[in-house]
Amino acid sequence: MDERAIAILGSGLIGESWAGLFAGHGYEVRCWDIDPSVATRAVLGATKIASAIAGPARQAGRITSADDLSAALEDASWVQENIVERVPEKQSLYRQVLELAGPDLLIASSTSSLTWTDLTTGLAGPDRVLTAHPFNPPHLMPLVEIYAASTHAAQRADQFYRHLDREPVFLNRPAVGHIANRLSSALWREAVNIVAEGIADVEAVDCALVNGPGLRWSVIGAHMAYHLGGGEGGIRHYLEHLGPSQERRWADLGSPALTPEVVDKLIEGIEAEADGRSVQELVSERDDAIERILKALKQPMIE
Amino acid sequence: MDERAIAILGSGLIGESWAGLFAGHGYEVRCWDIDPSVATRAVLGATKIASAIAGPARQAGRITSADDLSAALEDASWVQENIVERVPEKQSLYRQVLELAGPDLLIASSTSSLTWTDLTTGLAGPDRVLTAHPFNPPHLMPLVEIYAASTHAAQRADQFYRHLDREPVFLNRPAVGHIANRLSSALWREAVNIVAEGIADVEAVDCALVNGPGLRWSVIGAHMAYHLGGGEGGIRHYLEHLGPSQERRWADLGSPALTPEVVDKLIEGIEAEADGRSVQELVSERDDAIERILKALKQPMIE
Repeated sequence: MDERAIAILGSGLIGESWAGLFAGHGYEVRCWDIDPSVATRAVLGATKIASAIAGPARQAGRITSADDLSAALEDASWVQENIVERVPEKQSLYRQVLELAGPDLLIASSTSSLTWTDLTTGLAGPDRVLTAHPFNPPHLMPLVEIYAASTHAAQRADQFYRHLDREPVFLNRPAVGHIANRLSSALWREAVNIVAEGIADVEAVDCALVNGPGLRWSVIGAHMAYHLGGGEGGIRHYLEHLGPSQERRWADLGSPALTPEVVDKLIEGIEAEADGRSVQELVSERDDAIERILKALKQPMIE
Repeated sequence: MDERAIAILGSGLIGESWAGLFAGHGYEVRCWDIDPSVATRAVLGATKIASAIAGPARQAGRITSADDLSAALEDASWVQENIVERVPEKQSLYRQVLELAGPDLLIASSTSSLTWTDLTTGLAGPDRVLTAHPFNPPHLMPLVEIYAASTHAAQRADQFYRHLDREPVFLNRPAVGHIANRLSSALWREAVNIVAEGIADVEAVDCALVNGPGLRWSVIGAHMAYHLGGGEGGIRHYLEHLGPSQERRWADLGSPALTPEVVDKLIEGIEAEADGRSVQELVSERDDAIERILKALKQPMIE
């Protein structure tokens, strides 16, 4: 372990999940929130997650709640920040943290909708801030999307998240939506279009994704899929022969607006697909299936 | 089993994979191709696939090559057509088939780039033709996207593919790219844009997809993912609160052109990601991982 204690600043669902992951790998974790009762609740949830991750072989780290920032930051070398998605609140917190903390502390923001540039413009010490966006829930999903301006911060982040069994992915420059949410957003636009245009129902679209491209993309990326789609000639062959038809296909995709009619179709479709299952039940089913998959991909194949 | 023998017309890689799947579930299969050596080779490949699918408990169906169409169609009630993607060739084949075959035979086309309307315009007996587009390789990937104009054909197709352990998904109307390739195409457009704009490298984009949204979409669809992203209020809450920001995100996505510079970046990026592995090695890795996942999702969770 290269970091010392970890401070979770903002202890809602994302903070709780991170805290469980960190402690499950042996780190001492302090949870702070502007609402102390949120931090207390997070300690309970994170402790369960941590012991599941640590298993019988390893000792989970201690998770406590901290009443104030200086208690949260004591001996900490890493902050995972998950507070409200607003620049003034985040910058004000960063300023306090940088004043209280030792010189080696880094602040990793889980921000989904803001960029590193948004977070650091006008801030003294921008090199000590990085974006490290997880995919929900962070204790389960391997992806962490990172932008760090300094090599030092990037290297520490790489080492830290890899030690936690995550897959850190680095952006070359800050971008709204990082990578994954840009891809999700692009796919969902066409998923909405297919429903809006009456090509297929919500449930059919989801079923096609899960049993086709989604299954494939859990194993190989989109670029690699087109490489394999090109046969022995790979992506070079594909782009030479099918590049122009791909550009025509792109032109045929839709740009739906979320009109009241489209919104109604989406809501009705989801209700049919959920078939009485609550959001909580659906989340449990999702997480159970993702755990099976991650386990299966790690284990040797048993015939 | 509700169908009798199956005729594979067009016995390249897709036809061979279908033949293996059908015979693996006990069907007698005849492979025909305009090039008889292709049909002979398909019988060998499909026989291996079939015995792996049938396993020790079940008897695989017999797979033979047929020298002419009438031999391929003898006693057949189902055609899976996988010939070249050109309307005149396909329609000419369908005319011969419908003349030779009994009145209950249906022709399912694996066409990826053509629609049911393209295939049936001007054809006598359009109700006996349906599109049934698999995801490659068909013996492994569950998805079959179907458009059938008649309820009778749709019901038979549903029953037939379900018996083969596939997941049939029905379109309400024919569309270029059906569902899955429209979604893939939309996602890939943004994946290319991210590389073209210098936000991230090819390998980083693929790694983000596989460890984030791809993993999630192997379990739940894109619409359902936004439903769960809305918390207890589900997609209704999501659309009310974040609909406008989603529309702004859509507007921020790119429309890249496959210029020589972008093509070079993609090819270099894929070469870095493949890291010396051949297309054949990458395909084997992909298929092995997909088999593990499908197995893991079927079995009860073992702690």
